[in-house]
Amino acid sequence: MKKEILFGINPVLEALNAGRRIFFEVYIVKKKISERLERMLALSKEKKIPVQGVEPSQLKSLAGTDQHQGVGALTSGFPLSRISDIIDSGQPEDTNHLLLLVDNVMDPHNLGALIRTALCVGVDGIIIPKDRSVPPTPAVSKASAGALEHIRLARITNMVTTIKTLKEKGWWVAGMEIASNKSIFLSDLTGRLAIIIGGEEKGMRPLVKKHCDFLMSIPQKGPVNSLNASVAGAVAMYEAFRQQHLC
Amino acid sequence: MKKEILFGINPVLEALNAGRRIFFEVYIVKKKISERLERMLALSKEKKIPVQGVEPSQLKSLAGTDQHQGVGALTSGFPLSRISDIIDSGQPEDTNHLLLLVDNVMDPHNLGALIRTALCVGVDGIIIPKDRSVPPTPAVSKASAGALEHIRLARITNMVTTIKTLKEKGWWVAGMEIASNKSIFLSDLTGRLAIIIGGEEKGMRPLVKKHCDFLMSIPQKGPVNSLNASVAGAVAMYEAFRQQHLC
Repeated sequence: MKKEILFGINPVLEALNAGRRIFFEVYIVKKKISERLERMLALSKEKKIPVQGVEPSQLKSLAGTDQHQGVGALTSGFPLSRISDIIDSGQPEDTNHLLLLVDNVMDPHNLGALIRTALCVGVDGIIIPKDRSVPPTPAVSKASAGALEHIRLARITNMVTTIKTLKEKGWWVAGMEIASNKSIFLSDLTGRLAIIIGGEEKGMRPLVKKHCDFLMSIPQKGPVNSLNASVAGAVAMYEAFRQQHLC
Repeated sequence: MKKEILFGINPVLEALNAGRRIFFEVYIVKKKISERLERMLALSKEKKIPVQGVEPSQLKSLAGTDQHQGVGALTSGFPLSRISDIIDSGQPEDTNHLLLLVDNVMDPHNLGALIRTALCVGVDGIIIPKDRSVPPTPAVSKASAGALEHIRLARITNMVTTIKTLKEKGWWVAGMEIASNKSIFLSDLTGRLAIIIGGEEKGMRPLVKKHCDFLMSIPQKGPVNSLNASVAGAVAMYEAFRQQHLC
């Protein structure tokens, strides 16, 4: 079984709350005590997980970073979802659904930020390619403020094949593309919708773009014409939310 | 005159483009050459700014960080706007306007991210308090991808006084407050609107909140009930944009 070291208060606390990972041990730097930490310790005790006091330097060495906030845990690897669990999740009569597909996002902070927002929006799941995305690492969990621990996320081998499958199953596939002159606000985002976000540098791959049902962009003014990828994703997901739930 | 060291390709390039700072010198680590760097060097030459080749360690010491991407510049301090320039900016017959007020945001990355989005949305300006906000430092310029160099930003002494002035001049003041059950999507955001965003930890100060015309929130699902402050700001600003320009 793959094991890894989660670090940071939110990732450890949310992984305990979610109950999806096996916990082997919790690490804690002795002097740090806060309300959330108390909750984490109570949960660990309740679940009979051994808690070990460590020095900051030990935790830094275990986590491979000093961004640990005095907390870590040895757990099983991230519980991936199957693509079929995500795609077939909704009841047929429940018409509005939202998926997030991420292509070419290699930065853990951007992926984490997208996951955090996606969980708040209530997406059915997130799909990332194995070869063109940072995997769901502990650093991504930290960047997502622990949201990764609750989200359904699948890693797929071939993005184009997945897009074709989505289309066959009645999903619309909308790609975010800065050069598109179709505004997200003037696009129909109701029904079963999958939004694809590309990375900041290159956007999504050309072949992925080609297989979208349509491309859309966020209107932008001003001399520096670029939104951060995670901000663009958030604005698009919330516009879909607005159309799906309020109109 | 206050001087400071800008660092990073975007901040230096955008400050050159904006033409609002005095440049005393540009620093460049010799080996790094890219297309944007070429543009920066051409602009420096055109503006007769001395360019000095430096070692990475020298630039790190000058900038106080290793996030310099091989580029720095000694310039005048950030060109603050006067509050009156921002508030009175619109023509009276031009009814839709948008301001961003930021309270209790102490993290340069969050402020920078908000500024980057605000410039893309096309806000009239940003207002931050002197005592409860990170100032517009070079680190904020970096976090904004250089957007700070173009935005109108005023620092004010008293947030409540500023809110009162805004109201007198016909602005609506809307505060983002997670506990509010009034959705941004169901709020009227047209006209002359000032949106106030609080920091991630504490939100805005109670007295600031009390003086808002109304409070509003972004609908959130899921077990981890919190959007990042800069994401929440982006979603709110773009909803105002949508209502002001498309409805």
